[in-house]
Amino acid sequence: MRGNTFGKMLSITSFGESHGAGIGVVVDGVPPGLDFSLDNLADELLRRAPGQVAGTTSRKEEDYPEVLSGIFEGKTLGTPIAVLIRNTNQRSKDYEKIKSDYRPGHADETTMKKYGIRDHRGGGRSSGRETIARVIGGYFASLVIPKIIVKGFMTKLGPFVMKDLPKIIEDDFAPYYFPDKNRTKEIRDYLLDLKKNGESRGGSVSLIVRGVPAGLGEPAFDKLKADFAKALISIGAVVSFSFGLGEEMANLPGSEVSKDRRNFGGMEGGISNGEDILLNVTFKPTSTVGEKAKEGRHDPCIIPRAIPVLEAMVKIVLADHLLRQRAYEN
Amino acid sequence: MRGNTFGKMLSITSFGESHGAGIGVVVDGVPPGLDFSLDNLADELLRRAPGQVAGTTSRKEEDYPEVLSGIFEGKTLGTPIAVLIRNTNQRSKDYEKIKSDYRPGHADETTMKKYGIRDHRGGGRSSGRETIARVIGGYFASLVIPKIIVKGFMTKLGPFVMKDLPKIIEDDFAPYYFPDKNRTKEIRDYLLDLKKNGESRGGSVSLIVRGVPAGLGEPAFDKLKADFAKALISIGAVVSFSFGLGEEMANLPGSEVSKDRRNFGGMEGGISNGEDILLNVTFKPTSTVGEKAKEGRHDPCIIPRAIPVLEAMVKIVLADHLLRQRAYEN
Amino acid sequence: MRGNTFGKMLSITSFGESHGAGIGVVVDGVPPGLDFSLDNLADELLRRAPGQVAGTTSRKEEDYPEVLSGIFEGKTLGTPIAVLIRNTNQRSKDYEKIKSDYRPGHADETTMKKYGIRDHRGGGRSSGRETIARVIGGYFASLVIPKIIVKGFMTKLGPFVMKDLPKIIEDDFAPYYFPDKNRTKEIRDYLLDLKKNGESRGGSVSLIVRGVPAGLGEPAFDKLKADFAKALISIGAVVSFSFGLGEEMANLPGSEVSKDRRNFGGMEGGISNGEDILLNVTFKPTSTVGEKAKEGRHDPCIIPRAIPVLEAMVKIVLADHLLRQRAYEN
Amino acid sequence: MRGNTFGKMLSITSFGESHGAGIGVVVDGVPPGLDFSLDNLADELLRRAPGQVAGTTSRKEEDYPEVLSGIFEGKTLGTPIAVLIRNTNQRSKDYEKIKSDYRPGHADETTMKKYGIRDHRGGGRSSGRETIARVIGGYFASLVIPKIIVKGFMTKLGPFVMKDLPKIIEDDFAPYYFPDKNRTKEIRDYLLDLKKNGESRGGSVSLIVRGVPAGLGEPAFDKLKADFAKALISIGAVVSFSFGLGEEMANLPGSEVSKDRRNFGGMEGGISNGEDILLNVTFKPTSTVGEKAKEGRHDPCIIPRAIPVLEAMVKIVLADHLLRQRAYEN
Repeated sequence: MRGNTFGKMLSITSFGESHGAGIGVVVDGVPPGLDFSLDNLADELLRRAPGQVAGTTSRKEEDYPEVLSGIFEGKTLGTPIAVLIRNTNQRSKDYEKIKSDYRPGHADETTMKKYGIRDHRGGGRSSGRETIARVIGGYFASLVIPKIIVKGFMTKLGPFVMKDLPKIIEDDFAPYYFPDKNRTKEIRDYLLDLKKNGESRGGSVSLIVRGVPAGLGEPAFDKLKADFAKALISIGAVVSFSFGLGEEMANLPGSEVSKDRRNFGGMEGGISNGEDILLNVTFKPTSTVGEKAKEGRHDPCIIPRAIPVLEAMVKIVLADHLLRQRAYEN
Repeated sequence: MRGNTFGKMLSITSFGESHGAGIGVVVDGVPPGLDFSLDNLADELLRRAPGQVAGTTSRKEEDYPEVLSGIFEGKTLGTPIAVLIRNTNQRSKDYEKIKSDYRPGHADETTMKKYGIRDHRGGGRSSGRETIARVIGGYFASLVIPKIIVKGFMTKLGPFVMKDLPKIIEDDFAPYYFPDKNRTKEIRDYLLDLKKNGESRGGSVSLIVRGVPAGLGEPAFDKLKADFAKALISIGAVVSFSFGLGEEMANLPGSEVSKDRRNFGGMEGGISNGEDILLNVTFKPTSTVGEKAKEGRHDPCIIPRAIPVLEAMVKIVLADHLLRQRAYEN
Repeated sequence: MRGNTFGKMLSITSFGESHGAGIGVVVDGVPPGLDFSLDNLADELLRRAPGQVAGTTSRKEEDYPEVLSGIFEGKTLGTPIAVLIRNTNQRSKDYEKIKSDYRPGHADETTMKKYGIRDHRGGGRSSGRETIARVIGGYFASLVIPKIIVKGFMTKLGPFVMKDLPKIIEDDFAPYYFPDKNRTKEIRDYLLDLKKNGESRGGSVSLIVRGVPAGLGEPAFDKLKADFAKALISIGAVVSFSFGLGEEMANLPGSEVSKDRRNFGGMEGGISNGEDILLNVTFKPTSTVGEKAKEGRHDPCIIPRAIPVLEAMVKIVLADHLLRQRAYEN
Repeated sequence: MRGNTFGKMLSITSFGESHGAGIGVVVDGVPPGLDFSLDNLADELLRRAPGQVAGTTSRKEEDYPEVLSGIFEGKTLGTPIAVLIRNTNQRSKDYEKIKSDYRPGHADETTMKKYGIRDHRGGGRSSGRETIARVIGGYFASLVIPKIIVKGFMTKLGPFVMKDLPKIIEDDFAPYYFPDKNRTKEIRDYLLDLKKNGESRGGSVSLIVRGVPAGLGEPAFDKLKADFAKALISIGAVVSFSFGLGEEMANLPGSEVSKDRRNFGGMEGGISNGEDILLNVTFKPTSTVGEKAKEGRHDPCIIPRAIPVLEAMVKIVLADHLLRQRAYEN
C-alpha cells in the first residue's frame, strides 16, 4: 500500500534509502530452475553505475550485489530472491549542509510534508539509488523472457537529435545509446562542457521491444500500454510517456494513421499485436545546477545511466504479463 | 489479475461487454455516510454520452444507471456500491457483417489472439462503453475529495490550438472544452465537416487539478505521476501522457527549468506539492474512417466525450491516494 | 481493501445487501472458452436455497441468476463474469421492528460501531444472502478444476454423530449430507422439533477433496491450508477450522502421528501432496431462538444450506492455486 | 502471487531459506515518526530463539537483527523497513545425509513436486526459521497498536491441561506460557523426558487479545476472524484454529450460546465488538522422532518457541485492520 512493490505475478519489492545501510530488492515470482549468473547481474548494474560514462560523473560507487536468498547451486529456487547492495559512499559531512536546503524538482520538501520526517543526508527513498532495485528486478525478469529484446536509444540530447532508430537493434550503442555512433565524441564533449558550466540537460529516449508474442496485456485497466506507462513514469526524472506515433497523433487525420499498423506501436486495444513495440519517454534536466553541479558526483544528463533502468522496467512488465497469460491459456 | 480492477483503497471493478446485457461497476472503499445523488451521477454520465455534442454522433444511448447496492436512504453505507447500465442499443444485425473485419487500431484481432474467442458483435470489453464504469467510479471518488476541482480542456483539435489554459477553471467550457468559448461554432462546423467526409481527428487535452493537499503519492512505484499515467493511458484512445512542461523538458537547460516551480506540474519526487497539478494527454484519431465513419453512430473526434472519463480517472487516483495517506497520518 | 474480493488469479468480488436490490458477484480470472451452463449454475444455487430442506425453513426465495457479462454463445469469454440475483422478498414492514434490536452473535451492533450507519432492515452485508455470491463463484471455479471432487458431510448435529466418512464420495447425501442415509428421517424429525421449540443447533462438517494434484499451495503465507482456513472461517457461522486429524493432534505423540501420512490431511508443509484433502469446520447454532425462531423464515440449523457454500469456497481456493501454479511451471 | 507477502496496509514480505545467507523481511506500511528500539526487537526475537527454553533444544542460534532501511535516528521513516538475520549455523555436512530423506509431515517431498528443485540442506522456505520474519513484523506492528495486549498461553501439553486462563494477562508466564506457574518444573521434566526418548508432542494454545476497539474487520471475506485464521494456520505446525467457544459450539443449543456474549470470542459478524478476543490453535507434534530427535537441535515440543510467533501474527492482523479502518473513518 506504500507503493514499494511493483508487478503482480513477477514482482519487485524495493527497500533502502540513499544513506542507510544499503539498497535492496525482493524479486518474487521468478519460476524455479532458471540459470542465474552473478556476472550477468553485475554487468547490468555496471551499466547503470556512474563511472561508466566518462564525463557524466566522477563518483566511485561499487555496485557489487549480494544475493541473500532464492538461488541454490546456480539456479532459481522459485522462492523470493533478495539482493542487497551496500551503500559504500556515505560521506555524511558533505550532506549535512543541505539539511534544510530543499532542492526544486526534488522530493526534499514534499517528503517532509508527507511524512513529517526525513533522512536529510540525501534523497532517501527518492534518490536515484533506488533504481538499483529496478535493474536487479529487470535482470531476473529477463530470465523469464529470454527471446525478447529490449533496447533503449537516446534520441535527443540538446543539439543531438535522431528520430531514425536502428533496424538491427542487437548492436551496442553504449555509452550514450545515441543511434549514430559517429557522434560519440561530440556528445562526450558536450556533456563535459555542461559539467564545466554547472548546467544540465534532459532529453528523449525511445525503446524498441522485439519478439513480444501477440496477446499480452489486459483489455481494461491493465492494458500493456498502461503498465508500461506506470513503470516508466515511476522513474524519477521521467516526465512524459508515449507509444508508437505518440504526440504526433494529434496532428494526423485518421485516414493517415490507419494506413500503417506500425503507428500503433505494437499494441492495439492495449494488447500486444506481435509487432515491434515502440515506447518513448522524456527526461527533465537534473535539477542540480550552478556551483553545486560542478562537484564530482552530479550528472549533467541522467539519460545514459537511466537507459538500463528503463529497459529493466519494460522487462518486468513483460515478464509479469507473460506469466499472467500463461496461467489462463488452456 | 485480469486487470478489471483499478485502485487500492478506493477501487473500481468494471464488467460488461458492449453487446452483452450491460456495463457495470463495483466501487469499493467509499467511506460510509456520504451523501449520494442519483441526479448528479446521471449528469456525469450524460456528459460522456453521445448526443451531447452536436455533430459528433447521432446514436441515442440511454445512460440511466441502476444502483444495486451500497446506498441506503440517500447515503453511502461503506459497503461495495454496484451500479449497472443496461445496453439498450444492441442492433446485432448491424454488427454481423463486421464479424471477421478486424479494424486497425482496435482490439479485434489482438482479442482473438489473446483469448481465442470474442463477442464479434462489437468491441466487447475494449469498447468505449467500458468507460461508463470509470465515470461512475469518478462520481463516487468526487464524494471523497469534495474540495478538489478537476477540469479537462481540449487544447488541440486539427487547426484549433490553445496552450493558454483559463485561470478561473470553474467555468463551463462544454460541449468542446476548448478554452476559447468564442470558437465553439467554428469547432462545431469543423467536426460536422469531418463527419461528412468520413474523416477523424485526435488531439490534445490538458487537465488542471486544483486543491490537492501536499503529500499525496508514494516515493517509489506509486508516485502520484505514475498512477495518473496508468489511469489515463489505460483509456482506449490515449497515446501519450505528460505532466507540467512534459516533452518541452527535452529542450530546456536545467537552469531554466529550476526557475519556476510550476514547471514540475504540481508534483516533486512524485508527491503532490500543493500547487496546481497539470496533466497532458494526446488522443489518436478514431480508427473508423471512410464510408463507415459517415454512418450515424461514429464520432469524428472522441475528445469531447472522453474528457469526463479523463476527469473521472484523475478523481479516482486522488481519492485513492487521499485515503491511503489518511491511514498513515498520526 | 474493504475485503469484498477473494482470490487472486481467480477472484470473486461480492456486492449487495440483504434488503437492497440484489446480491451479485463479479467472477474474474475464469479462462476463456469454457462451457457454461445456466442450468448447472441454478442447480448449485438451489442447493443453497431455503425450501430444499424440509423443516429448516419455509421462506420462499427465488434464486434465479442473471448473467450480466462474460458469457457469449454458451462459453466463457475470459472477461469478468457478473451475475446478479434480485432480492424478491423485501417485506420491510416485518423488519422495521428490529431496527434497534441488536441480535447477539450477529453483526448488527458491530456494523453500527464500524460504519455509524446500517441498513436496519436486515443483515445487510453480513446477511447469509451474501453467500449466494460465493456459490456462484464456486460454480465458475469448478469449470477450472473439472477433475477435482469436493464433497461436504455433516458429521455432527445434536445427537447425530458420525466420524466415518464414505469411501465413495460421488453419492448424493442430500438433503442433510449426513454420511448415514438411513437416519434421514430421524434428522428431519429432530430439525422439525427444534423449530417447534424455537431452538437452534450448530454442528460439524468435514469436506473431502479428491483429485488435487501435488504441488498446490505456497510455502509461506499462502499455504493451501491457510487459504482454506480463511475461505471457510470467512463464512458467517463458522467458528473453527482444522485439517487432517485437527485438534486430535494435541493428544497424540509424534511417533504415532508420523505412522500414517493421511493424518496430515493431504497437505504437507502447506502444499498438497496428492492424497485426499480432509477439512473440518464447526458451525455455531444460529443466534435467533425463542418465539422469533418459530417464525417461518428461520433455520434451526444452517448446516444443510451451508454445505454448498463450504464446497464453493474450497473450489475457489483450488482453482486459484491451480492457475497460479500453471503460470510458474516451465 | 507467490504468497511471500502478508497484510495489506501493513505488510510483511518475507525471504530467505534456512541454509542460505539469511532470513529477512521487508515491513511496509509502518507510519512515520514511531520510536524504534533495537533492544526491544532483539528481545522479541530471543523469545522465539532456541536456548531460551531449557530442555527444548540445545542448538545455539544467534538472532541479532540488522536493520537495513526505514529507520533514522531511532524513528521510523514511513519507508519500507528491511531487517536481516544471517544464518550462522550452516553445518551442511550434518544435512547432506538427509538429501533424499523426505520427512513425513514436512515440505520436503511436496517442495520437490511443486518446484522440481530444492535446497536439500534443510527446510528451505518451509523451515521454522522463516518465522523470524513474522516476529520482526510483529514487533513493528506493535508500534502501531501500543494499547493492545496480545498474550498466548499453552493450555495443553501431554498431561498438562488448563482451560482457565488468567484474568490479569500482563504477567510473564515464560518459558512455557502455561497458566499455572507452579507446574513449570514438572513441564520441564516432561520435556526433557520426551527428548531423552526421542518422542515429540503437540498441544494447544489460546491467545487473549485485550484492548481492541470495536469496529475492526470487514463484513465479507476479510472478517477479522478470517484474517486471524489465515495468519495462524499459515504457521508451519498449526493444524486447527477456532475462536471463542470454538468446537464446543457443536455441542450447545442456541439458547445457551446466546446467553453470554463472551462465547463469541470478541467478534460478531466478523467484526471486533470491543470485548476480549479469544483465539485457539492446535499444534501437531514435531515430525522428527526416534534417534534423530535425540540429537541436540530438535525440539520435542515447538509450542514455547511458537507462542511469540502466534502473538506476532495476531499483532500484524490487528495493525493492518486498524490502519484500514483509520482510512475510512470521517
